Amino acid sequence: MFKFNELLLNMEEDNIFKNVSLKVSNYKKDNPDKNVISLGVGDVSKPIVKPIIDAMHDAVDDLSDSNTFKGYGSYYGYDFLKEKILDFEYKEFEFSLDEIYVSNGTKTDSTSILELFDINSKICITDPMYPIYRDGAASLSRNVFLLEMKDDLPVIPKEKYDIIYICSPNNPMGIAYNRDYLGKWINYAIKNESIILYDNVYSAFIESSDVPKSIYEIDGAKKVAIEFRSFSKNASFTGVRCSYYIIPKEIKENINSIWKKRTINRFNGADYIAQKGALASFLPDAQELIKENINYYKNNAKLLRDAFSNFGFHYIGGIDSPYLWVKIKDNKTSWEMFDFFLKELNIIIIPGIIFGKNGDNYFRVSALGKNEDVLEAIRRMGEYYNEKD
Amino acid sequence: MFKFNELLLNMEEDNIFKNVSLKVSNYKKDNPDKNVISLGVGDVSKPIVKPIIDAMHDAVDDLSDSNTFKGYGSYYGYDFLKEKILDFEYKEFEFSLDEIYVSNGTKTDSTSILELFDINSKICITDPMYPIYRDGAASLSRNVFLLEMKDDLPVIPKEKYDIIYICSPNNPMGIAYNRDYLGKWINYAIKNESIILYDNVYSAFIESSDVPKSIYEIDGAKKVAIEFRSFSKNASFTGVRCSYYIIPKEIKENINSIWKKRTINRFNGADYIAQKGALASFLPDAQELIKENINYYKNNAKLLRDAFSNFGFHYIGGIDSPYLWVKIKDNKTSWEMFDFFLKELNIIIIPGIIFGKNGDNYFRVSALGKNEDVLEAIRRMGEYYNEKD
Repeated sequence: MFKFNELLLNMEEDNIFKNVSLKVSNYKKDNPDKNVISLGVGDVSKPIVKPIIDAMHDAVDDLSDSNTFKGYGSYYGYDFLKEKILDFEYKEFEFSLDEIYVSNGTKTDSTSILELFDINSKICITDPMYPIYRDGAASLSRNVFLLEMKDDLPVIPKEKYDIIYICSPNNPMGIAYNRDYLGKWINYAIKNESIILYDNVYSAFIESSDVPKSIYEIDGAKKVAIEFRSFSKNASFTGVRCSYYIIPKEIKENINSIWKKRTINRFNGADYIAQKGALASFLPDAQELIKENINYYKNNAKLLRDAFSNFGFHYIGGIDSPYLWVKIKDNKTSWEMFDFFLKELNIIIIPGIIFGKNGDNYFRVSALGKNEDVLEAIRRMGEYYNEKD
Repeated sequence: MFKFNELLLNMEEDNIFKNVSLKVSNYKKDNPDKNVISLGVGDVSKPIVKPIIDAMHDAVDDLSDSNTFKGYGSYYGYDFLKEKILDFEYKEFEFSLDEIYVSNGTKTDSTSILELFDINSKICITDPMYPIYRDGAASLSRNVFLLEMKDDLPVIPKEKYDIIYICSPNNPMGIAYNRDYLGKWINYAIKNESIILYDNVYSAFIESSDVPKSIYEIDGAKKVAIEFRSFSKNASFTGVRCSYYIIPKEIKENINSIWKKRTINRFNGADYIAQKGALASFLPDAQELIKENINYYKNNAKLLRDAFSNFGFHYIGGIDSPYLWVKIKDNKTSWEMFDFFLKELNIIIIPGIIFGKNGDNYFRVSALGKNEDVLEAIRRMGEYYNEKD
């Protein structure tokens, strides 16, 4: 009889979206009159900007005419998009078209990459974590190890690990790692012949001068790091699906060419319309509008930072990232805090426990929502916390 | 130091598309004056029909307005599309919305499904095969076993296998399996508690009355079979990417709910525009136009069948499928036949060896090209073979 992937079979079902959504939808059903505001899941609220929309309309029209119709594209993405990304985001690093892969989402990319490596590879992640690394690895029959944390940073271990997930700007913690700290990881990986999987999907939010826009700014990173980025949070492509990643040829043992074999057999390329839209996101007028959207979210984050400070909460994040990682003041668990926010304030937050055991004294707040919702959430919190304090 | 997935590392690079494309592009470079016609790779030549194009334009517009903007959708596909597929393609089988998954391509779906099962599961495939089953499994660190063939059909084995890939209408052989034969496989799977992965992406081409449109027409199939289909070949979505599959709840051990855990952690849903386009493919006027396209390809297939018969070739297929599987008359290997067709006739075919060792006396011909190209290819073949015969 067939047997299951045991790690998948035994995986806990406490998934971030599922349980939060379930509790929210039950509450809404029981309280149809309440105006519930979400500071929860990290989906964008701004629609796609016009230059991208125009390009996607053109792409749809291409598909309607046999002279311009596009069927299967490249497994690795159209050159027009790869060239543009390399020129716009990676010019100083001089990557070739062979070193970039266009795909349909970093959730899939950052876990599928494990297919490249032996099933018994020692993979390490942090706690708190983006739980997809752990549960995506389990779906691919792989175990993960947890790094120790100190001062909100993963401690660079003494042991040898083969694969290291680094998420910066970090989800859920909302902080980004600086050049100095990342340099230590690159040195670790060079010394131990490890691979760093660098999840940089929130790169558009980086503003601190000591935080690199790309891991490849760090000396030696081209020898050990695979960087993942996406159009989701800047171009509002969470529903359109377009992402990319870099596998430098300088990583030894020819990882890049072995990954090409994998991709031919597991993927048929990203959607043509999405790729044409992604291309248009680099147009000057699109960039201008995208910057306005990022600033809109950054303004939300600023309002939230000020509010939580005023209400006496300790938090980190919200500067180089759309997330704030807020410490719970009393003895509530993070699910109790979630319930309190939902029922008393009608605000959705994400309980920290979802991101690992170390998160149970925290909750995550997202600045990706609508400004009016952020303002209203702050007003409600103010009523409660100012009354109390 | 990190180690590779050995099966991926050692995978032969003789991939269908890569080597054929390489040889073709080299030939074209050396012979820029030649008009090379492709009867090769199975991409569609008809553009997307107008009702679908209109729906995709509307979907693009939805994304431009904050009132209609769509971010993350369901991991499993929008209900609007799942409902329509179940109503249109599966009404008699009474599946629930929980039993269908919308995705972005059957190449990925039919291999990713292996993540559900233990890494040492006994997986069997045919030879000739759609090589993605073998090489996709290797990418996922899994070995496959080859079934024996007799009279162009895989022999139902005496041994127990956990997972069985069945592709019908078959790629590359161009034939579809009848109810009687498929019934034997279902009985085998029930008896051995195996899972059948039924790749039915060419279902739109089925015309023989003894061939089921869906595996679920066979008694007991709901207990053992997962069926994969796609919008690629009927709605011309090879560049748009939308597919779906059914995991019946009747399959024991609750496979369906375990797969949901996997999908939450590995996939963020198919593109909204693609799903809206796929929905529109079920509109009556879209269905009418899609039928015309299928008939156009079927007419190509008929012309090719008649031509190969006239030229004295033995072949199978080309009735319930866009592919013909043609036997080589002389002692040429399939790569020699490919070279001959390319250099002497300037026609691209696919050498059978690419589909496994049993394919080396054969080549695959696709009817998915343009009618004028098919006619010209037949004219060229006629000049050569009529001269000789």
